[in-house]
Parts: sequence; structure tokens; C-alpha cells
Amino acid sequence: MAKEVKLSDRVHGADTKASSKMLNIDESEIIDFSSNVNIFTSQIDFQAIFSNITTTLNKYPDINYEELRNTLSNIYNVKSSNIIPGNGATELIYLIMKLPQIEKIGIFHPTFCEYERAAKISGKNPVDLSFDLLKQENEALLQNAIEDLDMVVICNPNNPTGEIKNLSKLIDIANKNSTLVFVDETFIDFTDNKEYSMLGQINNYNNVIILKAITKFYAMPGARLGYIFTSNEKLIDMLWQYKEPWTINVFAEQLVKHLQTEIITSKTHYYYKDEIKRLISIYEDMNVKTKQSVTNYLLLRLPTGFSGTAIKAVLLKNYKLLIRTCTDFRGLDDTYIRIAIKDSKSNTLLANAIRQILCMEVI
Amino acid sequence: MAKEVKLSDRVHGADTKASSKMLNIDESEIIDFSSNVNIFTSQIDFQAIFSNITTTLNKYPDINYEELRNTLSNIYNVKSSNIIPGNGATELIYLIMKLPQIEKIGIFHPTFCEYERAAKISGKNPVDLSFDLLKQENEALLQNAIEDLDMVVICNPNNPTGEIKNLSKLIDIANKNSTLVFVDETFIDFTDNKEYSMLGQINNYNNVIILKAITKFYAMPGARLGYIFTSNEKLIDMLWQYKEPWTINVFAEQLVKHLQTEIITSKTHYYYKDEIKRLISIYEDMNVKTKQSVTNYLLLRLPTGFSGTAIKAVLLKNYKLLIRTCTDFRGLDDTYIRIAIKDSKSNTLLANAIRQILCMEVI
Repeated sequence: MAKEVKLSDRVHGADTKASSKMLNIDESEIIDFSSNVNIFTSQIDFQAIFSNITTTLNKYPDINYEELRNTLSNIYNVKSSNIIPGNGATELIYLIMKLPQIEKIGIFHPTFCEYERAAKISGKNPVDLSFDLLKQENEALLQNAIEDLDMVVICNPNNPTGEIKNLSKLIDIANKNSTLVFVDETFIDFTDNKEYSMLGQINNYNNVIILKAITKFYAMPGARLGYIFTSNEKLIDMLWQYKEPWTINVFAEQLVKHLQTEIITSKTHYYYKDEIKRLISIYEDMNVKTKQSVTNYLLLRLPTGFSGTAIKAVLLKNYKLLIRTCTDFRGLDDTYIRIAIKDSKSNTLLANAIRQILCMEVI
Repeated sequence: MAKEVKLSDRVHGADTKASSKMLNIDESEIIDFSSNVNIFTSQIDFQAIFSNITTTLNKYPDINYEELRNTLSNIYNVKSSNIIPGNGATELIYLIMKLPQIEKIGIFHPTFCEYERAAKISGKNPVDLSFDLLKQENEALLQNAIEDLDMVVICNPNNPTGEIKNLSKLIDIANKNSTLVFVDETFIDFTDNKEYSMLGQINNYNNVIILKAITKFYAMPGARLGYIFTSNEKLIDMLWQYKEPWTINVFAEQLVKHLQTEIITSKTHYYYKDEIKRLISIYEDMNVKTKQSVTNYLLLRLPTGFSGTAIKAVLLKNYKLLIRTCTDFRGLDDTYIRIAIKDSKSNTLLANAIRQILCMEVI
């Protein structure tokens, strides 16, 4: 019998189910540091949302998502005709890669692996771009690197590094070159540094496409809702032409009306900035290298001789803590791990566990 | 400014929102005969499902849908490894069309337009097949028609005719020719004629792929859940390889555990068979031609001189009844309309309205 190939054969976070099965324990016993969703959530009156659920379920989602786009328009202050919602950010990544007009693609690595997979599934062969190209002294190199490209993809802040870059130069150079810039800003709301977001630039630069989602910041990966913002009407039309119908479920349509944007934002900014600072200091003390993350996760580089895969296994087995290895990120090897920032107590628990493992020096 | 192109520029049913907006009335005032979902629904304890919704929302859907596939396995008595769930039947139609191994495709027309759109979006150029090929005397023609094809697509019972065909011969011929047969059985549970379903044949014929969904029979188009059944392991592997991750929301994952299969089935069979018989007799009396539908909708052919588009407009404006024109079905012109079967009172209301319009003979 052929081996059953599944999506999970690719590395991704959040697989507490398989981990708990492996350990023969209840899923809730595991603290999940592998999935980087916000620990703060909207206090939503689900009772109200679902009181007339049979009627809602009974209907197809609006094929044009008019109401949904109006809600997003109000939240993000973007014209509703400049918004395309999707079944999570994922649908929109795969959708844009389908467009035959976008043939030559560059992806800034190391980063989220689905950009590359989406491009390849659509028969494209994306080229790798280095984040070093964004350094001021490399402007000529950047210009050269994107010259032939129809689109570049950049995750900002980046997953898994958590670092944020100023993209003004990139967008300007790309614009002059008629190259689209697809900016995944899924994690940008975790930082209060507003000037890094390119959302405000979409009316000045019609080569810019911004991707966001309720998945990470609003901690609703289960609902499946993402959205693209761009003022490029030709592109918007092409995306609708290629979009599959009825991809967004009616629950997501309802939920988005109840996001408590201001409360979540202030709680999130208040907490993560200081907590990350605290954790960076703890890990650096253990000789674990960190990145200046502005998000809700940290990329750690283990001391020489330690493997992420081995540490992940020990953390899971002995401590019931699930972290994420990084070998699927192009350019990162098994000396890296990514950890989500949870509540302080859990974060300290993980840091102590990692310290113990590193001290044993036996794995 | 460029015209805003939307998915709804294609004809589809269920657009009560746009219709109510046009008439400046509340959406609930319109009786929707354009969308063919079951009028019987499961009595689901949503309270129970959504009591721990924040935790559920907080997690990604299982990337392999193990539990979901097990639930479907129990309902349909198919091995869970032979099931691939999707974001509605739609995702799975688009998914199979993506496979580069499936190049030459034939579609039996007139039928649901998304098969053709999905094929074309993936750069395939499907050929049209006539249902007449399924007649016994046309076996040689059928053999000839599918000889070069990698896959044929057939909707059974068909949308919009509601007719059901015996596919044994097709499947057998296709099997000998190594041609896949993609059978959309979305509407098959509306009939108690069990022998027409090819689901029981998937273990005997590994060229058969069955598509089903909770959309129509369980009246949950808003939840977005469909599934493919096939014993073809090579095909299953290819589909997983091309499948986008996390396409099914956690609500759908939960809902499927609460489908009241037996109750819905018996209510549905008890009601629709007789009601369709009653309506066919009413419409034939008006000189409106019908098809022998085994589903929850009827394809009507208007008397000479009447246009479906005009009748739809009058029904909506004067009676607040929404029906579906059929010009988007290849092979059908504007003399056809499709009506869903609702409760008896509504059905009679529609029949009387159509009778009045036909009697006026002024449109």
C-alpha cells in the first residue's frame, strides 16, 4: 500500500493533536509554543452571533462579500472595492500565485514556506531573495535582483525572525520597475511602530498588495479569514476572475463584526514588548542567540552542538511543551527553533526547561 | 475607473441580498427558489457546539482533518484514508482540476458551470459531452468520446435537470480505458433509489471519485464542507500534495458530528417525491415542460415566446419570488428556468404566479 502523504508531511506549528496522541496524553496538557497566535482574544458574545445560526447556515455566503468588505473597510480605513477577503490568508497567497500575468516571482527568505509552495503548485519557479538586499548599501543589488521580476513577496514583520524592515525603498524601486510587492503584514499589529506598515501607502503605490488576517492578531485561526488590500484595480479584477466562489464561511462573516480592535491592540502592545525584552535577556544569558522580534514569537539559535529537533523531542516528552523547529525555513538549519510568547509563567517554564536541557549537554 | 468585476458576474442562485437591495425591501421578504438547499434541517444544539468556541477558534483546524475524516467515515461507511474533505464541494472541484496529471477532461452538459470554470482556470480546455452518450444504443460513441480523456465529470442527479442516470456502463468503459470518472453526487441523497449511487462501487472501480457535501442535503451552504471519496490511493496522494492547508473552518469540523442523517433522510424522501409529482402535474397543465427530477428542484421549459429572464424579473418585482435563469448552463437557453421545491404553500404560490404571468402573455 502506498504511504499516505498528508499536508502535515510539511513542517508547520500547532500540531498539538498529533503530539498528544504520540505521548498518549490529553491535548490540553500540552502548552503549545509552536503556534504564534495572540494570547489576548476579543470578548465576543457568541450567543448573540449564533442565535439565528440555522438561518445563517442555510444560506450561501455572499459571493461578493459586500457586507464583510464594508466591515473591513471601516476597521482598516480602506475603500471596500480595494479589499478581497479570503479563506484565511492562505487562500489569497495561493490565489495571487495563480495569476498567469505574475510569472516571475522573488521571495525574501528565510520565511513562511507557503509562498513558495503556492508559487510552485501554480507552476512558477520563484527565486530566493536575501533580506540583506534591503540594506541601504545594497540598493544597486536590489535594483538588479528585482529587475526581471513581476512580483516580490516579503513577510513584514518576518516569520520566523520577528524582525521588521523599512520597505519604503523596496516599494519605490519596485514601483519604478513595475514590480508588484506582496507584503504579508499578518504580524504587524503586534508592534506599535506604525510607520513600518505599508497599508497607508497603497493609494500612493499601486504596485503594493497588503495581506492581513484575523488568524494571528485576533487569535482566530479556526475561523479562516484573511484579506488583501490594494488600490491596483487591474489586479483586483484579475484576482476576482480567478477566485473560487463561496470560500468564506458565514461564521467568519459574522465574527469580523465583533473584533475588539482597540482593546486587543492596547493589551497586546502593553504586554508583548516588555515580555519579549525580558525573554531576550534570559535567553542571551544562556548563550542562546535571539533576534529583535517585534511580534509574539522569538527565533532562537541554540549553542553549538545542540539540535532543534532533539530539544523539541525532549521538551515535549519531559515537559509537555511543544515548540517549532525551523528546518523548513529556507536558510535556517536545525540550530534554530521558534517559540511563541505565551503568558509570563509559561514563558518562564519554557525558558527554565531549555536551560536545564542545555545544562545537561547530553542530547 | 475600471468596471468592478465580481464573482457574481457569473449567474448563480441564492443572491437574495442583491435582489432585496434592488427592490429596496428586506431580504427576508423574498422567497428564494433560486437556491436548491433542503427545506429540512438538523435540529442541532448549537449551544453545546459553541460553548467552548473561544478555545476552538483559537486553534488551527487539524491540517489532516483526522477526526473529521473519521466522522465522515462512520456516516458514509468509507475508509477514512479514502476521504478528502474540502471547503465546500467547490474546493475539491478546483483541486482536482489543478492536477497536471489530469490534462484532458470531458464534462457532461448541461450542468453546473463551476466544473468548466475550474478546469479553465487551471489551463485545461474541457470538451463537452452529451448525456445522450449514456443511452444504451450509443455505447460505441461513448467509448469513442472518452478514449482520449483522462477524466470525465458528471453530476448525478444532474443540476439543473434533476434527472438521474445509471452510470454503471460509463464507469466500466472508463475503467477499461483508465479514464477517471468524477461523479458529483451532491443531490443523490434526495432520492431513495439507492442503486444509482456509485459510492458503493469505489472499492471495485478505482477510477471512480465521488463528490458530496453538507451544502445541499443538510442545508448548510454557510458552513462550507464537502468531501471526495475514492479508493485510488495514487490520486488521493496527488490531491493531498496539491491541497491548500487549513481550508476547513473549525465550525464545520464540529457541525458534521451533529448531522441527523436518518431523520433528515426519511423526512426528505417522504416529502419531495410526492411534492415534485404534484408540481410536475401543475406545470404540465400550464403547458410548461418539466423533467423527471429526483431532487429538490425542477427544470421548467417555458411555452414558446416566453423568456426566463423576463419572468424572473416580473416574479421578483410583483411577487417577491426569486427564481433562477439557466442561460449559464451550456446547452440551455432563456426558455428554461430552475425552481427549488420549498414548502407546499410557497410552491403553490410560485406556480400560481407563473400561471398568471403566462396568462397575461404580455412579457
